[in-house]
Amino acid sequence: MTKVGIVGATAYTSLELIKTLLRHPDAEITYLGTRQETGIRISDVFTVLTKTFDMPCSQLSKNDVPKDVDLVFITLPPTISMQYVPQFLDAGIKVVDLSADYRFKEISVYEKWYKVKHSDPSHLKTAVYGLPELFREKIKGATLVANPGCYPTSALLGLAPLIQKNLIYNDDIIIDAKSGISGSGREPKESTHYCERNENLEAYNVGVHRHTPEIESIISLIGNSDTFVYFTPHLIPMNRGILCSMYVKTKKKITNEEIRDLFNDFYAREPFVRVCSDDKLPKIKDVVNTNTCEISAKVLGERTIIFSSIDNLMKGASGQAVQNMNIMCGHRETMGLL
Amino acid sequence: MTKVGIVGATAYTSLELIKTLLRHPDAEITYLGTRQETGIRISDVFTVLTKTFDMPCSQLSKNDVPKDVDLVFITLPPTISMQYVPQFLDAGIKVVDLSADYRFKEISVYEKWYKVKHSDPSHLKTAVYGLPELFREKIKGATLVANPGCYPTSALLGLAPLIQKNLIYNDDIIIDAKSGISGSGREPKESTHYCERNENLEAYNVGVHRHTPEIESIISLIGNSDTFVYFTPHLIPMNRGILCSMYVKTKKKITNEEIRDLFNDFYAREPFVRVCSDDKLPKIKDVVNTNTCEISAKVLGERTIIFSSIDNLMKGASGQAVQNMNIMCGHRETMGLL
Amino acid sequence: MTKVGIVGATAYTSLELIKTLLRHPDAEITYLGTRQETGIRISDVFTVLTKTFDMPCSQLSKNDVPKDVDLVFITLPPTISMQYVPQFLDAGIKVVDLSADYRFKEISVYEKWYKVKHSDPSHLKTAVYGLPELFREKIKGATLVANPGCYPTSALLGLAPLIQKNLIYNDDIIIDAKSGISGSGREPKESTHYCERNENLEAYNVGVHRHTPEIESIISLIGNSDTFVYFTPHLIPMNRGILCSMYVKTKKKITNEEIRDLFNDFYAREPFVRVCSDDKLPKIKDVVNTNTCEISAKVLGERTIIFSSIDNLMKGASGQAVQNMNIMCGHRETMGLL
Amino acid sequence: MTKVGIVGATAYTSLELIKTLLRHPDAEITYLGTRQETGIRISDVFTVLTKTFDMPCSQLSKNDVPKDVDLVFITLPPTISMQYVPQFLDAGIKVVDLSADYRFKEISVYEKWYKVKHSDPSHLKTAVYGLPELFREKIKGATLVANPGCYPTSALLGLAPLIQKNLIYNDDIIIDAKSGISGSGREPKESTHYCERNENLEAYNVGVHRHTPEIESIISLIGNSDTFVYFTPHLIPMNRGILCSMYVKTKKKITNEEIRDLFNDFYAREPFVRVCSDDKLPKIKDVVNTNTCEISAKVLGERTIIFSSIDNLMKGASGQAVQNMNIMCGHRETMGLL
Repeated sequence: MTKVGIVGATAYTSLELIKTLLRHPDAEITYLGTRQETGIRISDVFTVLTKTFDMPCSQLSKNDVPKDVDLVFITLPPTISMQYVPQFLDAGIKVVDLSADYRFKEISVYEKWYKVKHSDPSHLKTAVYGLPELFREKIKGATLVANPGCYPTSALLGLAPLIQKNLIYNDDIIIDAKSGISGSGREPKESTHYCERNENLEAYNVGVHRHTPEIESIISLIGNSDTFVYFTPHLIPMNRGILCSMYVKTKKKITNEEIRDLFNDFYAREPFVRVCSDDKLPKIKDVVNTNTCEISAKVLGERTIIFSSIDNLMKGASGQAVQNMNIMCGHRETMGLL
Repeated sequence: MTKVGIVGATAYTSLELIKTLLRHPDAEITYLGTRQETGIRISDVFTVLTKTFDMPCSQLSKNDVPKDVDLVFITLPPTISMQYVPQFLDAGIKVVDLSADYRFKEISVYEKWYKVKHSDPSHLKTAVYGLPELFREKIKGATLVANPGCYPTSALLGLAPLIQKNLIYNDDIIIDAKSGISGSGREPKESTHYCERNENLEAYNVGVHRHTPEIESIISLIGNSDTFVYFTPHLIPMNRGILCSMYVKTKKKITNEEIRDLFNDFYAREPFVRVCSDDKLPKIKDVVNTNTCEISAKVLGERTIIFSSIDNLMKGASGQAVQNMNIMCGHRETMGLL
Repeated sequence: MTKVGIVGATAYTSLELIKTLLRHPDAEITYLGTRQETGIRISDVFTVLTKTFDMPCSQLSKNDVPKDVDLVFITLPPTISMQYVPQFLDAGIKVVDLSADYRFKEISVYEKWYKVKHSDPSHLKTAVYGLPELFREKIKGATLVANPGCYPTSALLGLAPLIQKNLIYNDDIIIDAKSGISGSGREPKESTHYCERNENLEAYNVGVHRHTPEIESIISLIGNSDTFVYFTPHLIPMNRGILCSMYVKTKKKITNEEIRDLFNDFYAREPFVRVCSDDKLPKIKDVVNTNTCEISAKVLGERTIIFSSIDNLMKGASGQAVQNMNIMCGHRETMGLL
Repeated sequence: MTKVGIVGATAYTSLELIKTLLRHPDAEITYLGTRQETGIRISDVFTVLTKTFDMPCSQLSKNDVPKDVDLVFITLPPTISMQYVPQFLDAGIKVVDLSADYRFKEISVYEKWYKVKHSDPSHLKTAVYGLPELFREKIKGATLVANPGCYPTSALLGLAPLIQKNLIYNDDIIIDAKSGISGSGREPKESTHYCERNENLEAYNVGVHRHTPEIESIISLIGNSDTFVYFTPHLIPMNRGILCSMYVKTKKKITNEEIRDLFNDFYAREPFVRVCSDDKLPKIKDVVNTNTCEISAKVLGERTIIFSSIDNLMKGASGQAVQNMNIMCGHRETMGLL
């Protein structure tokens, strides 16, 4: 039985962690920490948990870690998370960090895009990027896993087979991404106001979204080449889900069948990647509330269009975090996730 | 040509006022006032107006009214509005106030429900409740019109014919009301967050919504009797629209045909009330973006169920406000509204 | 291990049955029958099941039942279902019928509202109405359970405590019900077209909805009195969920606390009914994708307003059907449902 | 006063035509023709028109044209429309055809993509592609205007300035398009079912959508070069609106300012194209229910990303059709459209 804490318990991703862990036969939530709200039970914040899970939240403090915890999920915002990660690691507690603070091997890239000095470079060195389909072996032995961003998870799972086989030009990858609104978090602001989002659609952060360097750094890592991605996120009026439509140029002619075979080989043993057959295309409806990523590709002229869809809160955040926990703690990888 | 100012220009209702007035052949917007934001153009706030209507907003101040204005629409919140209304009236400017501050003849009811002392009782005495279908003659001569609330507009138009004919028991009126989210205003808060409202539905303010005494006071006025309404508003995942489903008890047996005839007579000359024929029921789709109210009734057992639908931002706010302006200023009543 | 068949496998309710049963540790789906589509796998219809559950569908035929099945869920439409139920029962297979065909003890009521002659009156006599909170003991021994309608489930769970205690007038119950669109089924028609339902809201089947007599007959049964309900369903732009707002008149004065105590007593041991505390009101978001019913009540003047919310596809259909199976087959009642 | 007929009156686009024409001071609807439904008034189909516009629909027949009509809008489906167009033209009636039947100068392209033989090649020769921003002078003298498709309108308005200046490679244009559901028409089918579209998102017709050759043929025409567009449409859960996100490669380095200046010059006198300033991006909310197209561009690496948004039923269909009528009939171009 793995004893689990959640640090930043009032985030949307934390609710998904809780729901998933409550179904997990070999994990138990023993700690909920929050920075601001004290004296509350988690079911005061997420009323859906009332009478199911009414655990009180503890005030998170620096230099004071809960006892009776084997692993913590940290759902604090980037730049905040790294202020708390060291104390857990130092106390021998494994960490799955859902923020961006430990995703970048090149500290300068992080500091440029997140506009702060990294306060914990030593742990950064040991952190493993938690995309199990690419880095499972390293995750097994890790004490600190940097859980991938939602867009990078979707994009990378679609691109990885082609990049690893060196089949495409890595400096002309176009990623047109569409996301539901829960990706913007639980804080009310103009851009999450119902009337601003409903019956509306727009791109945002074009060329400056922080998931851009995250995608590029992993492509560079597995592709051994310079990388440039044109990443354009859009907000879609729905609660959950991400679809990436990606336009890549193959180095030589390839057929639809060849790509499907490649995808099928690459993901043959993966429990959470579903390669679409025939003319089926990934759709949000078929991945939402699951930890599954659906992918397909279609050759068109000199380009190949790859589609990849996930639930941003599950495979794009909390589901993948539990998948990482399962790997780190020796549980069956799908536990709690089917 | 009526010269018009809008005080509180950044509210959702102000955008509807602007759109409506831009189509109005005999009105011209000459002033936009806001309390907080200065140095902005209205198209900075409502980007849909860019290059169509880029008027700068003025800082609203007490004891300083714009020149060159014949009538102002005030879209400030209740309890704030009455701090500004007097200065416009004193300067000879007509006022259509969209807040609740001048809707109650009994000052004690206002003070009980709005929890402040009324600061302008003298003008309150002269204010006319701006529901043209009931009070058109008084509106004609008014200098201060209290524009009705959105729920009261919908409810009262459905109930008025039966109440005026003394056909129902006024102390057992059940109003189950459903509203789109724009009724909650433009301020981001948890209850207007996209992910809290989308795929969700709930009642709110049961028994304590401030539109309850407004509905009761007008029913008492036109019905000459004690009144009690069971008013239950619900939030519906859509931008605009209100549907009231109302369950009343008739004093004697009545048929569907008799009620329809009564409705048709009552509203025979009204340009903005559409009595449904046959089995058609009011629906939001058929009134949204219009100043129309749709009503129908169905007798069932000892009760009659009345349905009444409006666009909360149009007939429930800004459309009706322009209708009032038309009546006050001698324009054709439908001008700008068809 | 209970071996389960689903007859009418392509309905929305069947997808929910499949998802629920796949998580059930002591049940196994061994048969999927459909009337029309042959040669298909269920994952062709519900692509979300691809690679998870690709079972082929069998052509359903009269006088021919699958072997290796202990219990069937029947999701065929009313009037069709009773054409198939007898053959399963006669073969010793237990039946949970999700249609209305076995819900009415008075055959004349069924025939009046469903406009056909009942073809299986003998089994009708033995059928048990499958609302476990009211009829658990009878369900335990039943071979044929009539699974309740979605609206009746929501309405009855809110009303039952007051009716059983004889606290309200049963001939003046107003049920204003709001439902998501999945309640209208999977067949495309004008009333389920996206653009007709989105940003829209309307009542339908006022006074003639077939769930009216179902609600009335159960109230009469448990209340021992004449019953008349004013039942008005509305279509809400969301996929799933029902909220009933019910206005009842108590025979004597009652307080909010007394009703809450009554509710808490009545449902003290129920795993799937959650009585709201304090001022919390039931909301769809807190029951969707669960088998939970949330209820609360508020006294207002001479009436009490009761709110009751469920997921129409879960507690209102497939979740409750599995709950019934659990009771009939001796499994823990919550199995597969938490 | 232009006397107008609508042929195919029950389409969604026809409702928008009617609403627009009812506000048009110099046009009058004198004829509504439908193929199937007879003996109906248009307000039976579109109940929003009740008591506003209850005109009866005539049975459309071949070789029989209405008298008292100067111009008809034809909203019949492609391949059907060309069966009716000749009889109107032969009777001296101008035609704005909203189908694809007269959009292709190369008959072979039409026949390949629409899979029928073109039955009216002679009129095809005289037809003018009705995108006023590009072909206004030709539209002025036309008797037959082929109203552009919704996606082509959005895409071409964003691309045209760069293509006419020969600034981009025309054989590597990526158009990732997102559309609301009304673009799929009024016929109920699985792909327009509320529960299939709501909370869902997917690409469709990848590489085979019929708007692909339409876009390519106009680019070839104005660009004088070989053209290949990667066009990928997606269905978004909202009623109306199209956003095209387009990734093009410029032949030489260009700055954001240069592109904005180019756009501003190109559209300086256009009443219905709004070039965004600064960092504003096109969004659906700012064009829906208007005839406006919003565009902006952003340089990123070696590519430029162009965004272009319209209301698919207005600038993408009926609004543009009325704009064309205004040009053909000598009315002010914006009449009825502001």
